[in-house]
Amino acid sequence: MNLILIDPLELNENSAILRDRRAKHIRKTLRSKKGDVIRVGIVNGRIGTGLITKIEPGLVALEVRTDTPPPPKTATGLVIALPRPIMLKRVLAQAASLGVEKIFLINASRVEKSFFKASLLSEANLREYLLHGLEQAVDTMVPEISIHHHFRPFVEDLLPEISREYPVRLVAHPGGGIDLTPDLLPEPTSPALIAIGPEGGWIDFEIDRFSEQGFGCFSLGPRILRVDTAVPAILSQWQLLRSLATARN
Amino acid sequence: MNLILIDPLELNENSAILRDRRAKHIRKTLRSKKGDVIRVGIVNGRIGTGLITKIEPGLVALEVRTDTPPPPKTATGLVIALPRPIMLKRVLAQAASLGVEKIFLINASRVEKSFFKASLLSEANLREYLLHGLEQAVDTMVPEISIHHHFRPFVEDLLPEISREYPVRLVAHPGGGIDLTPDLLPEPTSPALIAIGPEGGWIDFEIDRFSEQGFGCFSLGPRILRVDTAVPAILSQWQLLRSLATARN
Repeated sequence: MNLILIDPLELNENSAILRDRRAKHIRKTLRSKKGDVIRVGIVNGRIGTGLITKIEPGLVALEVRTDTPPPPKTATGLVIALPRPIMLKRVLAQAASLGVEKIFLINASRVEKSFFKASLLSEANLREYLLHGLEQAVDTMVPEISIHHHFRPFVEDLLPEISREYPVRLVAHPGGGIDLTPDLLPEPTSPALIAIGPEGGWIDFEIDRFSEQGFGCFSLGPRILRVDTAVPAILSQWQLLRSLATARN
Repeated sequence: MNLILIDPLELNENSAILRDRRAKHIRKTLRSKKGDVIRVGIVNGRIGTGLITKIEPGLVALEVRTDTPPPPKTATGLVIALPRPIMLKRVLAQAASLGVEKIFLINASRVEKSFFKASLLSEANLREYLLHGLEQAVDTMVPEISIHHHFRPFVEDLLPEISREYPVRLVAHPGGGIDLTPDLLPEPTSPALIAIGPEGGWIDFEIDRFSEQGFGCFSLGPRILRVDTAVPAILSQWQLLRSLATARN
């Protein structure tokens, strides 16, 4: 936890009282005491400092001042075939820590149906995993997340609309076709939407539907990666492409 | 497990008998039966097929034929400040799945000393984590791994010798300085050694020692990443740089 995130609803003027794992973190891990100043951020807001005005078992009171904007988002959206619960938790934190703006969790032929029943999918849980990533990365902007239980309604009814926001659209698929080069980006900041399949990959029908929506296939190479390796791999390659495109311009 | 890895010592001519988690995986996850053919690899050897000649609770007998070389290694070495045990397990699997050739686990000022006592550091355990990554990625070549309990003897006595193999040497450090571009690589396949710090980062003394050995500092951007996000991020950026350098030549 490199940043203590505070919800705007927890603020009373500039004061906040924390009683949960954040209070524990401040006392036990940071070993802070009254009068210390720690780094805080307001959820979907600015970053700044929290002066500790009271600290006791189970409770930390802070006087909050924020003035610094969070790091810029990356204009990148992810479509992810829903992974198993333990992996989902990790992948959402990773995606948030890497500055993804929107996450679409979708169904696919090779997604186990039971994953959609998981209690992990409650809105509160999803938000908590995203906050974990933000606390790590020192960011405050919570990615938008949505869950889509059926593949066809998602790609046929929603994706055309979503795609309008993303001039660059790619789907990870062995064999690929599209080379990742800075030339893919009309502008360094062009929004990009990237689809990542389930363990076992997308089926041909799914790839065809993505292709119809203007998604190009790219490959991560000859190695089969777990989704918690593939997600940071793809996002960081994409970040590098953006920085190379910036240098080119 | 996308590949069943078999140690050469387990082979009797072309036969192998498996009794451990691999046997369980073949029976329970793959739901294979006698006569089925599964994908196998020989540790540090070739990839091929295993014909199931016997299958019963706790035992699978295979007739093995291998003819395909594993995917190429990436001529990339990693120096990693020893992370906490749970993270180490994950990071070693990730590094192996991404084709790292050599891994140097080292001490640093901000590494908790207790991590070096962890039973996880036994040779058998480290090897098992690496094999998990290879099984995932469908690779057979086990990265070389070594543990260095003291920072100074490593950088002062060993690193000069190690560095001769790696014309490209980089250390991840906030603020950076070196831009990651394909021009860093004299040749697309030039060996590169990349150093990744502990939670909390390298201290100045450590950065100075790396600089003396010709390491350039690069940054992963304004976001603080967990090591299990940073490792795939860096390795995959490096893979992309190699492919862009190949296209350039």
